[in-house]
Amino acid sequence: MSRILTGIQSSGRPHLGNILGAIKPAIELSKQPDNESFLFIADLHSLTTIKDGPLRREFTKAVAATWLAFGLDTEKNTFWRQSRVAEHTELAWHLSCFTPFPMLNNATSFKEKSDRASTVNAGLFVYPVLQAADILLYDAEIIPVGKDQRQHIEMTRDIASAFNHQYDEDVFVLPDARIDDRLMTIPGIDGAKMSKSYNNYIDIFLPENELWKVIKKIKSDSTPLEEPKNPDTDITFQLYSLLASAEQTAELRSLYEGGNYGYGMAKKAFYELILEQFATERERYIYYTIENPDALEAELRAGEEKARVVAQKTIARVREKLGFN
Amino acid sequence: MSRILTGIQSSGRPHLGNILGAIKPAIELSKQPDNESFLFIADLHSLTTIKDGPLRREFTKAVAATWLAFGLDTEKNTFWRQSRVAEHTELAWHLSCFTPFPMLNNATSFKEKSDRASTVNAGLFVYPVLQAADILLYDAEIIPVGKDQRQHIEMTRDIASAFNHQYDEDVFVLPDARIDDRLMTIPGIDGAKMSKSYNNYIDIFLPENELWKVIKKIKSDSTPLEEPKNPDTDITFQLYSLLASAEQTAELRSLYEGGNYGYGMAKKAFYELILEQFATERERYIYYTIENPDALEAELRAGEEKARVVAQKTIARVREKLGFN
Repeated sequence: MSRILTGIQSSGRPHLGNILGAIKPAIELSKQPDNESFLFIADLHSLTTIKDGPLRREFTKAVAATWLAFGLDTEKNTFWRQSRVAEHTELAWHLSCFTPFPMLNNATSFKEKSDRASTVNAGLFVYPVLQAADILLYDAEIIPVGKDQRQHIEMTRDIASAFNHQYDEDVFVLPDARIDDRLMTIPGIDGAKMSKSYNNYIDIFLPENELWKVIKKIKSDSTPLEEPKNPDTDITFQLYSLLASAEQTAELRSLYEGGNYGYGMAKKAFYELILEQFATERERYIYYTIENPDALEAELRAGEEKARVVAQKTIARVREKLGFN
Repeated sequence: MSRILTGIQSSGRPHLGNILGAIKPAIELSKQPDNESFLFIADLHSLTTIKDGPLRREFTKAVAATWLAFGLDTEKNTFWRQSRVAEHTELAWHLSCFTPFPMLNNATSFKEKSDRASTVNAGLFVYPVLQAADILLYDAEIIPVGKDQRQHIEMTRDIASAFNHQYDEDVFVLPDARIDDRLMTIPGIDGAKMSKSYNNYIDIFLPENELWKVIKKIKSDSTPLEEPKNPDTDITFQLYSLLASAEQTAELRSLYEGGNYGYGMAKKAFYELILEQFATERERYIYYTIENPDALEAELRAGEEKARVVAQKTIARVREKLGFN
């Protein structure tokens, strides 16, 4: 049994890029019989950038509803809001006293942010310590991350080692990063990587008319209707093929290459594919966000109870060593 | 009614210098009818310097027992261990996201420490934010501090203002520092300021024989027994006069000036004055630390319950603004 931990960003509503690149793969991983997944909504981390309370509440609900809509099994796994388990910030304080200041000061993530922002807050500086607490609190063994997060997992290992070394015992499990090189880059409607910050994303939970408005905006070249088109350079085709079966993709390819097939028609095909493929998920999303938000809240609270049981065991070990009991 | 908040260091057993310079004045202040004092043992802060668990446990008990021995009224006031109220670290995280990084980087306390220590931990860097949380969590109005802490109270005000400004409301009370310029400097047995770090302190709770051994070590000059002595340059006389009545002090002065009175005799007089003056406190200290440690624990737990009621109200206001509810 491997314990896998994933922190879920909650700084926006999940879009197609998040769903295909992160949510679906994580849910697949959680389904493997040998895995037990701990998945938390990192709402405390979102405070480093988002100060608007109602917005955070909306994003948190949207993120939770998306994971549930895509079939996360909350019986087998543990799914909770970070801010509801007080042990995260308590452990972060303890760990900060075992974290060399220069380690944080030299972290790449901080250097990049401190160059960009005119005023950087202290939360941005210490958040790798909160991240270490998130991981160590649950004795997580495997942390699936992108390459840019590799350094943070190393920092977590260093902090945990310093602590274990101080007390001559294995209080913490040292986690391993699992770098996923195959991580798909999903193009946005302008062809750049789909991202909230580029405002080029597709929100698959939009009402049909709004969804169609977004799909229509997908960039295409000016090849006339009657001429053959190159599917391999077209964004709509790329997006379509990410969702479609091999047969459907081959069929669309031949339509592109045959001519007399316009980009508008391809966009319509992509739009209809979204509605068809995500019919269940769209229904469930509406259920959790609009029809029965209490069911969403109940799921999250049950997850918080489960998370707390594990977190409290770890923090009891830590307090014992530190003399806080 | 003024709400006064004091964080009590727990990085050692309290000595005569702490008792006369800090504990007794704070207890006097808490007795004034118009005041309500919040006094907490800052054990989380002690982690920035002390890693030894059993030592922290011992120090925390010694500190708590000292305050109770000196008659702190825990019914009127609130007295608790910081580490037992989870809202301290939670609020510290929230506030860190409203704290400009340069504010911490330029703090005098950090600059001094980072110059001295070869490896500085991140806890030392962010502790002014935890201190701000300690204060703001209890809507404290007045913080009695030494001059060296004035900057930290300013930082607390700045962080609280930034938060209040962000949400167009007065979520936090802005605290005022009350700088006590009259703070007594109590000499240690070598004449330098009495301090744990100089190892020149008098622990008034020691068993009699051990206490006498320490008193005997008080530095004195080599004036022969029969000659008159100058009380104003003698450490034993200074210490004696801090505890004695005006009459007792005048009497000892004439003995010094009359000659045929040795330093050993003065030390014996000082030793006996300690035993006499602190007879009740010594008994109560033994009661709380040895005879009935459960009574100490019960006092602290009752205080934690009281503290939590206030802390939870504040954190609820904060969570509401931040969208964590």
